[in-house]
Amino acid sequence: MLLPDERIDTLGTDELRIIQSSSVFAYSTDALLLANFARVPKSYKMTIMDLCSGTGAVALLVSQKTNATIIGVDIQQRLVDMATRSIALNKLDQQVTMLCADVGSLASTKPQESVDCITCNPPYFKVGDAPINPNPHLAIARHELYLDIKTLVCTAAHLLKRNGTFFIVHRPDRFLEILALLQEYHLVPKRIQFVYPKSGRDATVLLIESIKYGRFEGLKIEEPVYLQECTYGET
Amino acid sequence: MLLPDERIDTLGTDELRIIQSSSVFAYSTDALLLANFARVPKSYKMTIMDLCSGTGAVALLVSQKTNATIIGVDIQQRLVDMATRSIALNKLDQQVTMLCADVGSLASTKPQESVDCITCNPPYFKVGDAPINPNPHLAIARHELYLDIKTLVCTAAHLLKRNGTFFIVHRPDRFLEILALLQEYHLVPKRIQFVYPKSGRDATVLLIESIKYGRFEGLKIEEPVYLQECTYGET
Repeated sequence: MLLPDERIDTLGTDELRIIQSSSVFAYSTDALLLANFARVPKSYKMTIMDLCSGTGAVALLVSQKTNATIIGVDIQQRLVDMATRSIALNKLDQQVTMLCADVGSLASTKPQESVDCITCNPPYFKVGDAPINPNPHLAIARHELYLDIKTLVCTAAHLLKRNGTFFIVHRPDRFLEILALLQEYHLVPKRIQFVYPKSGRDATVLLIESIKYGRFEGLKIEEPVYLQECTYGET
Repeated sequence: MLLPDERIDTLGTDELRIIQSSSVFAYSTDALLLANFARVPKSYKMTIMDLCSGTGAVALLVSQKTNATIIGVDIQQRLVDMATRSIALNKLDQQVTMLCADVGSLASTKPQESVDCITCNPPYFKVGDAPINPNPHLAIARHELYLDIKTLVCTAAHLLKRNGTFFIVHRPDRFLEILALLQEYHLVPKRIQFVYPKSGRDATVLLIESIKYGRFEGLKIEEPVYLQECTYGET
């Protein structure tokens, strides 16, 4: 079941396990923060999509909060394979499935307004803004080589039903750009949370919940999270 | 020097005093937060304007950080009178002056690009969103009866020099609207700070520093402030 460079790690505080590989991909604290932040629909009739799913950490974690069908989407076949085996390992095959696809292609391959909720931990870095990792698996996960933030937001808006929810984790230095895109695609921010490494430091992580065609009133800036105090366990 | 309903209070941690009246106006914690957040230019050649200055708390506090000329502007003559007497009381007449004017009129009465820095603690409530205080002094300070947020941002953008800084305190539930207006008038947010009543609660106060025609990159979300831990002293 495991390739030579792979290992099985625990995931979060639930009794979940995940197949990882330091030469390919290992989930980050940000995946844990996103899964923790997301208030997903509970019913088995609902569909949740986890875009840029990687090895499936967010999809697996979110499965513990809901009976909804969860579809993880990632462009990298190797990561999708690992995620699929992790799903089997956790006996979640009936609830969680993986799809190997370019997120940008979903607007033409998936029906409009077909998804109730989307989670996404996308690549953070614009091409040109940071040195690109020589490891192609890590490069694709971290840099906007195959998916930029505009295409992501546009695709999420296409897929989501009216009043569907979109949860994204990103970096605070791209906050204004992300807000402008959400507005352009009628995804209205309702909850925002900033994550700080520790007291006295600027925020390093941004979490946003938006609702498609939501009302503009009533944005909440939720209590800060300090990574120092997190009990999630980092890889 | 004092009218029958007036008293002299201490202001902040500096040795400042301020004339207040519970029947007219008393400064709030938000004025202290704004004065603390603002990084104002230091030189005596600079001009700082404090819009919606009330009894001058922000103007007085900011004077302790700079040699710049400070002009406080408020529409209420009674508050301007109190502020003027507070300025004299603190022997700051050479640095701080008050102007009784409708902030919205400044775009036609003051030259464009003439101010280096603006601070503002404006009325927070849209007309219709909250019951209007029967005390007209308090009503004007709290509700957008004479100045709405769009007019304020437009006026600040008119008055500020290129690269001038604009510091505003407001409520987080109007964050998206304020960001959209700042963008419309080319005031680019560079620092944002949220203030929380205590741990585990949503933010109740928002502080933004914007730069006129600033670069879009490099927004910082600064460490959270907890009111519970503030040493400012509240009135």
